[in-house]
Amino acid sequence: MPHITLPEDLPGITAGFAFRPETAKPMRELAHILLHEPNSLTPGERELIAMHVSSQNDCYFCQTSHGAAAAAHFGDDEIVKRVKADFQHADISEKLKALLAIAGKVQKGGKHVTAGDIQKARDLGATDVEIHDTVLIAAAFCMYNRYVDGLGTWQPRDESMYATMGKHMATEGYRKPSLAAADVA
Amino acid sequence: MPHITLPEDLPGITAGFAFRPETAKPMRELAHILLHEPNSLTPGERELIAMHVSSQNDCYFCQTSHGAAAAAHFGDDEIVKRVKADFQHADISEKLKALLAIAGKVQKGGKHVTAGDIQKARDLGATDVEIHDTVLIAAAFCMYNRYVDGLGTWQPRDESMYATMGKHMATEGYRKPSLAAADVA
Repeated sequence: MPHITLPEDLPGITAGFAFRPETAKPMRELAHILLHEPNSLTPGERELIAMHVSSQNDCYFCQTSHGAAAAAHFGDDEIVKRVKADFQHADISEKLKALLAIAGKVQKGGKHVTAGDIQKARDLGATDVEIHDTVLIAAAFCMYNRYVDGLGTWQPRDESMYATMGKHMATEGYRKPSLAAADVA
Repeated sequence: MPHITLPEDLPGITAGFAFRPETAKPMRELAHILLHEPNSLTPGERELIAMHVSSQNDCYFCQTSHGAAAAAHFGDDEIVKRVKADFQHADISEKLKALLAIAGKVQKGGKHVTAGDIQKARDLGATDVEIHDTVLIAAAFCMYNRYVDGLGTWQPRDESMYATMGKHMATEGYRKPSLAAADVA
């Protein structure tokens, strides 16, 4: 049961967004810029960073929905499972592995990031903007994850719902108001 | 030394904001709504929640600047010191103490919040919006704090700079582009 009276039948963050549209707007805008707008990191790579951090934070809704968005971008859900289980041995670039390692440090706390972590990413070709965005995606998902779980939102265990949601997120991004329950059911 | 090449002489989050104005805009907007716009919790109370979470996250820049903003709102920096040291024995309302306890749980992770924590706040008069905003302020500062420290930003140890910054934050809020270094020096 949610901790406060949230709109019924809306899963995860969509319930919080419907409850407080004023704060939903900049939160959606930030996700849209970080995950969906053109960037030298592909949307799929950025969704993997979001999924990895959400998984570290043990947020079922976010790790499943952003994992589904990554799978939609890659056209492959095997890569998502591999990254989730052990990204160091997944079939992704060495640069992305270095960025995922930085994201994992940020999840623990900003001070865990070392000059060595940054140098490693840089040696593998990461730019300042890519490092910045990795830090901010990781930091932002420490917010989204805590928002979703801190409100005690409803997080259905229905893989097909998340697959539908992930396809929508991969296509439309995050700027528009969230999906209604009817759209994801 | 910052981990990436940030604009020089800008402290803490203002350097990240200047580096990437696209993401700065929704991040400033969210802080403005949560901390500065009219709300049944006073701006000073909300700044105390921000300071408490930033202190738990050991983020020097955010705890000092938002502590200074709280002091500017209360016209008293003694209350800020008391809340930081031990909010359960500070001269604040029992409702705010219950909300600070919820914020502290969110800082650890969203799942730490219990039905009992919420019931306690509710019994002391907290509304659903107040509980929602407390959860989101705490979650958002888990983002801002990680952003500030994860980029390795410059965080000067100059109390008078933070006092000036806090007054500006208390008066103007967060929507406008951040202070330039010249304004806070």
